[in-house]
Amino acid sequence: MLEELKQRVFEQNIALVRHGLVVLTWGNVSARDGKTGLIVIKPSGVPYSAMKAEDMVVVDCDGNTVEGDYRPSSDLPTHLYLYKQYSSLGGIVHTHSTYATAFAQSGREIIAYGTTHADAFYGDVPCSRELTDEEIDEAYEWNTGKVIVECVDDVEAVPAILVKNHGVFTWGNTPEKAVENAVTLEEVAKMAYLSEQLNPDVKRVKQHLLDKHYFRKHGKNAYYGQK
Amino acid sequence: MLEELKQRVFEQNIALVRHGLVVLTWGNVSARDGKTGLIVIKPSGVPYSAMKAEDMVVVDCDGNTVEGDYRPSSDLPTHLYLYKQYSSLGGIVHTHSTYATAFAQSGREIIAYGTTHADAFYGDVPCSRELTDEEIDEAYEWNTGKVIVECVDDVEAVPAILVKNHGVFTWGNTPEKAVENAVTLEEVAKMAYLSEQLNPDVKRVKQHLLDKHYFRKHGKNAYYGQK
Amino acid sequence: MLEELKQRVFEQNIALVRHGLVVLTWGNVSARDGKTGLIVIKPSGVPYSAMKAEDMVVVDCDGNTVEGDYRPSSDLPTHLYLYKQYSSLGGIVHTHSTYATAFAQSGREIIAYGTTHADAFYGDVPCSRELTDEEIDEAYEWNTGKVIVECVDDVEAVPAILVKNHGVFTWGNTPEKAVENAVTLEEVAKMAYLSEQLNPDVKRVKQHLLDKHYFRKHGKNAYYGQK
Amino acid sequence: MLEELKQRVFEQNIALVRHGLVVLTWGNVSARDGKTGLIVIKPSGVPYSAMKAEDMVVVDCDGNTVEGDYRPSSDLPTHLYLYKQYSSLGGIVHTHSTYATAFAQSGREIIAYGTTHADAFYGDVPCSRELTDEEIDEAYEWNTGKVIVECVDDVEAVPAILVKNHGVFTWGNTPEKAVENAVTLEEVAKMAYLSEQLNPDVKRVKQHLLDKHYFRKHGKNAYYGQK
Repeated sequence: MLEELKQRVFEQNIALVRHGLVVLTWGNVSARDGKTGLIVIKPSGVPYSAMKAEDMVVVDCDGNTVEGDYRPSSDLPTHLYLYKQYSSLGGIVHTHSTYATAFAQSGREIIAYGTTHADAFYGDVPCSRELTDEEIDEAYEWNTGKVIVECVDDVEAVPAILVKNHGVFTWGNTPEKAVENAVTLEEVAKMAYLSEQLNPDVKRVKQHLLDKHYFRKHGKNAYYGQK
Repeated sequence: MLEELKQRVFEQNIALVRHGLVVLTWGNVSARDGKTGLIVIKPSGVPYSAMKAEDMVVVDCDGNTVEGDYRPSSDLPTHLYLYKQYSSLGGIVHTHSTYATAFAQSGREIIAYGTTHADAFYGDVPCSRELTDEEIDEAYEWNTGKVIVECVDDVEAVPAILVKNHGVFTWGNTPEKAVENAVTLEEVAKMAYLSEQLNPDVKRVKQHLLDKHYFRKHGKNAYYGQK
Repeated sequence: MLEELKQRVFEQNIALVRHGLVVLTWGNVSARDGKTGLIVIKPSGVPYSAMKAEDMVVVDCDGNTVEGDYRPSSDLPTHLYLYKQYSSLGGIVHTHSTYATAFAQSGREIIAYGTTHADAFYGDVPCSRELTDEEIDEAYEWNTGKVIVECVDDVEAVPAILVKNHGVFTWGNTPEKAVENAVTLEEVAKMAYLSEQLNPDVKRVKQHLLDKHYFRKHGKNAYYGQK
Repeated sequence: MLEELKQRVFEQNIALVRHGLVVLTWGNVSARDGKTGLIVIKPSGVPYSAMKAEDMVVVDCDGNTVEGDYRPSSDLPTHLYLYKQYSSLGGIVHTHSTYATAFAQSGREIIAYGTTHADAFYGDVPCSRELTDEEIDEAYEWNTGKVIVECVDDVEAVPAILVKNHGVFTWGNTPEKAVENAVTLEEVAKMAYLSEQLNPDVKRVKQHLLDKHYFRKHGKNAYYGQK
């Protein structure tokens, strides 16, 4: 069932390790099948070194397991919340990547300081508010989705968010694109950190240059890459 | 004698290198055999590249060599002190991992700034006091165990400590878990460092979220990972 | 056509990855053929892992594709501007390497703090001004070349520049030399960053030592390396 | 001639790359043959990837080439000065390793903040004075040896030094030990950097603990490692 998508989700989970975005088992990638709406996600707490494509878990949009021997990632409800909210999403990534998580721990958005940022994200990457004690007690992972959505202005323009004191979620129309956004997020977080250390008065890139770089790669007038 | 445990201790010593936690020969892993109470530990000052499973040294709880051609790690008495004090320990790790050791050199505890920390450690990771000159002269490595124990509130809740001006000890019910805690400690130390640099007024994660994440992974209501 | 140069440009694009200077597809290397004046450049947005030597694009000095199935790098006009301006250039590199780009985002030149810098760059590495909105709208990549040239004092003495809020260009008489300069630039950027953090009052290396090291490696009295 | 020593010097030059201490060709290792007093050193500016054991150059104590097709490292006179001054030296290393060089650029000694430092270096690692313009003009590399020696209090106690605005020299009774000291120096430089960033009031490790760790590994009462 969904063998090809399971293979892709497996490969993208492994890609998180290869890109240095996860330590131990701290990350997960999911994808949504366009036809059936079913979601494929990494199993919970299984070491990357032992994981196989067939270990991926298939769930429906309410989180019921449709196929798989393992329990799905404990972060599944956050993924489900985001898929329900945004019909364009085909893939979601969660990591605790080092620099981006440091911003999340600091309760700081990542400001768009340059074109590296603008090439992928059309504006700052926001940091969510804290969950209330009630939100934590009730349905923690589902409510994590809720506080993310509160921060999202345009889900396609800025496909990444920091969850306060926690970590990172990124997304895209495919799991591959979601992982690419996770790679970019960590790199621009590191560059933003260094820029602020170098120059405490560093300024946001000007809007005109942000527009230029973002729309060079996105939208109908894009001219980066191959047709 | 204890061939399987020697193999595991060997593999976990090698894992320290693979995880980037040790430089040259600066680290060691030990394990305690549940049945006999004997302890298996890395030999002192042997290069990791030349080390074999059969080089692991078996000692009794007083540190007498029971089997092995090499002298045990010079840090053995610290391991022995901790095994004596805490009957639940099955593995202990010592490293000078970079960021965690920088906290130890600074005489600073690692504050729990986020869920990455809370997933493994139920509270701040303390930094020990200095040893007195007498404690250094008498039985340095044994007394290192003593100052560690002075800082430990709940040995299972926070399975890691910084020894002032020195380095790191972590532990667990197995050597594998002790190494996992050493990996986590270094990563949360790096994140804490970056968080403080980004925001000098960064606050500890709130207790409610710390509880949620710690108990999601530990204790009878845990729901992370596989059953 | 220009098979050997295509192979070299391909290898130097791969070298950027190996040296850790590019993430995803964020970089490109070009070379100019001495005889024909034709330029060989990386295709736009093609993943490094899938790229082959025959995918390199050959263009004339006005940017018209002479050979190649792919569109050339979108940064091609910047390369063309620099080749037109400086007849001695045989290779050009563009990256968003982490530390150097942090300087560019901060609008800061990289000051020559030591001999590592002086061995390659005869003076500080300047940071360009911002492009005006008009320059961005009109012919962005061409005008990027223009603001670079405004900053260049001696194209051979300092074969590197930071483009404000953007990234890095380096060059040389061959693509191999341009890549070597990109490696050096990132390393001296990291060292400069650390030096300023260690000592906010750090001073530029004195001119006499800068001269000594630069001319030990460059010019008619050079005595570094093999004859 | 001296085939075994050439092999060892070659391997230790390669080890510098493996340990991440050199970029491009920025480093060199030499060794002195105990019987003949001849010195084996890396050739100048030859890429590590193409270098072979037989490329090592053999020189006498005045720097005359005794065997070898290549020119010796341009830093040879510094090595010669140190070998002449200190009869116990069997190996010398020069690098521009990142953190240690940042201290050198900042004109800062590396303070002994902990036992990682004390295990190898009996006290702070000093930073030399600047060379005068005359010293630079006359015999730059030879005079680099001179300013190093001015800073050395006990050549065996602290087998490492920072040369102001330049880089690092370390040594030992063998080339292997000299490389080990170069690895340690870079790591303690990084830890010292982080410690100062974490705590601007961080204090030097107390003398009693420095003594304990240094003499645990050195001298007649050492008990670290194997007999």
